[in-house]
Amino acid sequence: MSKKNLIVGQSGGPTAVINSSLHGVVSEGLAHSDEIGHVYGMVNGIEGFLAGRVLDFEEALPGEKLTYLTHTPGAYLGSCRYKLPESLEDPVYPELFRKFEEMNIGWFFYIGGNDSMDTVSKLSRYAAKIGSSIRVIGEPKTIDNDLIHTDHTPGFGSAAKYVASTVREITLDANVYEKKSVTIIEIMGRHAGWLTAASALARKYDGDNPLFIYLPETDFDQEAFLKDLEKAFETNCNLIVCVSEGIHDAEGTFICEYDSSVGTDTFGHKMLAGCGKYLENLVRSRLGVKARSVELNVSQRCSAAMISATDQQEAVAAGKFGVQAALNGETGKMVSFIREADADGNYQMVCGLEDVNEICNQEKVVPAEWITPDGHDVTEDFVRYARPLIQGNVNVPLGEDGLPAFVYRK
Amino acid sequence: MSKKNLIVGQSGGPTAVINSSLHGVVSEGLAHSDEIGHVYGMVNGIEGFLAGRVLDFEEALPGEKLTYLTHTPGAYLGSCRYKLPESLEDPVYPELFRKFEEMNIGWFFYIGGNDSMDTVSKLSRYAAKIGSSIRVIGEPKTIDNDLIHTDHTPGFGSAAKYVASTVREITLDANVYEKKSVTIIEIMGRHAGWLTAASALARKYDGDNPLFIYLPETDFDQEAFLKDLEKAFETNCNLIVCVSEGIHDAEGTFICEYDSSVGTDTFGHKMLAGCGKYLENLVRSRLGVKARSVELNVSQRCSAAMISATDQQEAVAAGKFGVQAALNGETGKMVSFIREADADGNYQMVCGLEDVNEICNQEKVVPAEWITPDGHDVTEDFVRYARPLIQGNVNVPLGEDGLPAFVYRK
Repeated sequence: MSKKNLIVGQSGGPTAVINSSLHGVVSEGLAHSDEIGHVYGMVNGIEGFLAGRVLDFEEALPGEKLTYLTHTPGAYLGSCRYKLPESLEDPVYPELFRKFEEMNIGWFFYIGGNDSMDTVSKLSRYAAKIGSSIRVIGEPKTIDNDLIHTDHTPGFGSAAKYVASTVREITLDANVYEKKSVTIIEIMGRHAGWLTAASALARKYDGDNPLFIYLPETDFDQEAFLKDLEKAFETNCNLIVCVSEGIHDAEGTFICEYDSSVGTDTFGHKMLAGCGKYLENLVRSRLGVKARSVELNVSQRCSAAMISATDQQEAVAAGKFGVQAALNGETGKMVSFIREADADGNYQMVCGLEDVNEICNQEKVVPAEWITPDGHDVTEDFVRYARPLIQGNVNVPLGEDGLPAFVYRK
Repeated sequence: MSKKNLIVGQSGGPTAVINSSLHGVVSEGLAHSDEIGHVYGMVNGIEGFLAGRVLDFEEALPGEKLTYLTHTPGAYLGSCRYKLPESLEDPVYPELFRKFEEMNIGWFFYIGGNDSMDTVSKLSRYAAKIGSSIRVIGEPKTIDNDLIHTDHTPGFGSAAKYVASTVREITLDANVYEKKSVTIIEIMGRHAGWLTAASALARKYDGDNPLFIYLPETDFDQEAFLKDLEKAFETNCNLIVCVSEGIHDAEGTFICEYDSSVGTDTFGHKMLAGCGKYLENLVRSRLGVKARSVELNVSQRCSAAMISATDQQEAVAAGKFGVQAALNGETGKMVSFIREADADGNYQMVCGLEDVNEICNQEKVVPAEWITPDGHDVTEDFVRYARPLIQGNVNVPLGEDGLPAFVYRK
């Protein structure tokens, strides 16, 4: 009987290193040509696979081109937001497994966040139910760092490095004038504040900006916020404030909803600006100082220049580890990261495996003890946790056009 | 008599290489210790100088530290937005020159844009009027590229590289889903569209995104815009649209004013969102497709990772050239860039000098012949002009904290 083939897909929002995880899976798959036949990619995840959209990596990214994945942001294979039905009796399951059989698939890898782990859970359970030998493994991915049972997630380190570096640069930019100013920086994270907390890494000395960091794990009080700013102005000229997009008040109302409840455009549609823009206006009108807001936006998850070498290497390692685990017969597992210290006490990470059923559809937030009692900063424990994850630069090759040389499907 | 001293200041908004120009002036000044005594910096420009805030570079940035300026964004010396009075009879002029005399200043350098060149103009004219031997030289700086009598300005190349690279990355990010989407990217530039035009450099092939580029040099028609998008959807799934913050309609109304005319926050103050946010809402409500907007914001002028090596080297060269010119007796001049071709026809830049009085308070916009007749793109001539300016990466050293190692005044 012919060798079984491997297939891998990407799902959910992209990160700067989701393609590094892909590289790990594909390169390890190709390295095991004694056991694995073709290494396929599904285009636009499980949804594209159902529509028959598949590529063969040896044709799509031959030789050296494959390594370009490790510095190319976005999801090379494309993504989807397709959720498999809860009931394993749904006809989509036999349809999927018929297609797997047609393509002689023996190993299935899915790179993504919570929802993708849900897919891995369902496919592995269905495989067990029908007695299929297909191994189904989840590769973690999310800038939000909100998956449980793993020290951190691939993608978080690079996004954290982007946040820390950019907040540092914006601080330098804000410091050029000697006129009281407030800069609000809005950072991704609806429910978990990991990425916003990473702005603490931007500080160069005690008392440096950002002076205020607000996470969605605590309630945001607008009046207390304004008082805190006024107090800070007694000793500082330019204040940098970092806020999660998902900050909310004690009643649970998102701060970004405060403006959209009133603002409408000329067509009568609600204007949906972020909490940063709202707070900018609040500060300007109430404190009468210069105020501006910066929404870091999608560059947080797609900046090649800010890829953390540590994050990139770990993403590749997780990809490879998953293939090795599948070849060892594991299934229904997600690759996890376990933090260890080397002989000198330095940060070291090893891969592990966790039951995917215990991971999907759950969420890990910043622990309360890592948030300062005043609710507008994080502790040194958080800084010690996050600092190792942003280490190292990646050399992104330039094309003749002066831009990073990426790989992409047209 | 003792050797005369040199003083240099920075003014206006910072750029990624305004400190490279500073490095050029300071290093060249220190290299001429036979003619020049101290090399001073005025903190917060002419305004800080009037308040007596001055530093000595040999103390502030000794030895190797000085080179850190070439990869540090923001204005190391701080900046100001102080405009000297029009009348040379104003008492501030004798006050300034008395201070120059007290510090035994022989050479004065000011790094900035239009307004800074106005300062250079006034000080050099006042020096001539009173028979002072002080040499006054302007060093150009602006991401907007809107100074006349120079091929381009230091700062534009790095900002253009940031725009092109980021638009490229956002394109990769937008392409991951197979659902119709419009991404509006708002780029700096109120009156001149040079930086927005640089988004054309992001394209990898004919017909690639960004599919639409709108500059403030032309009128923006909202209905025509929507029609163009609908037509583009016939052959494309994800549309990237780049707009200058200063786009306006045929009546001269800024597009960003369309929403602020209606939207107010809970305090009754006008919400000032940008044109990108307005167009996002327009597209969503009128075309019923997924729409988002990204305001590139201050990172355009302060991203160390996106410093163009060409821009950095030219900024240093301009700084050095200015000092040499001053030592040769020149005054009331701005250093300019003249484009030449080397023996192989490749891009080459040499420095020149222009009468600063002919430069200040004027503005260079993108020429009409570099904008396509349909008004939503730039021509290949623009691409040929801009491409050489974004070439080359700068290696920014990392500190132990994993962030770029910058120099700064506390």
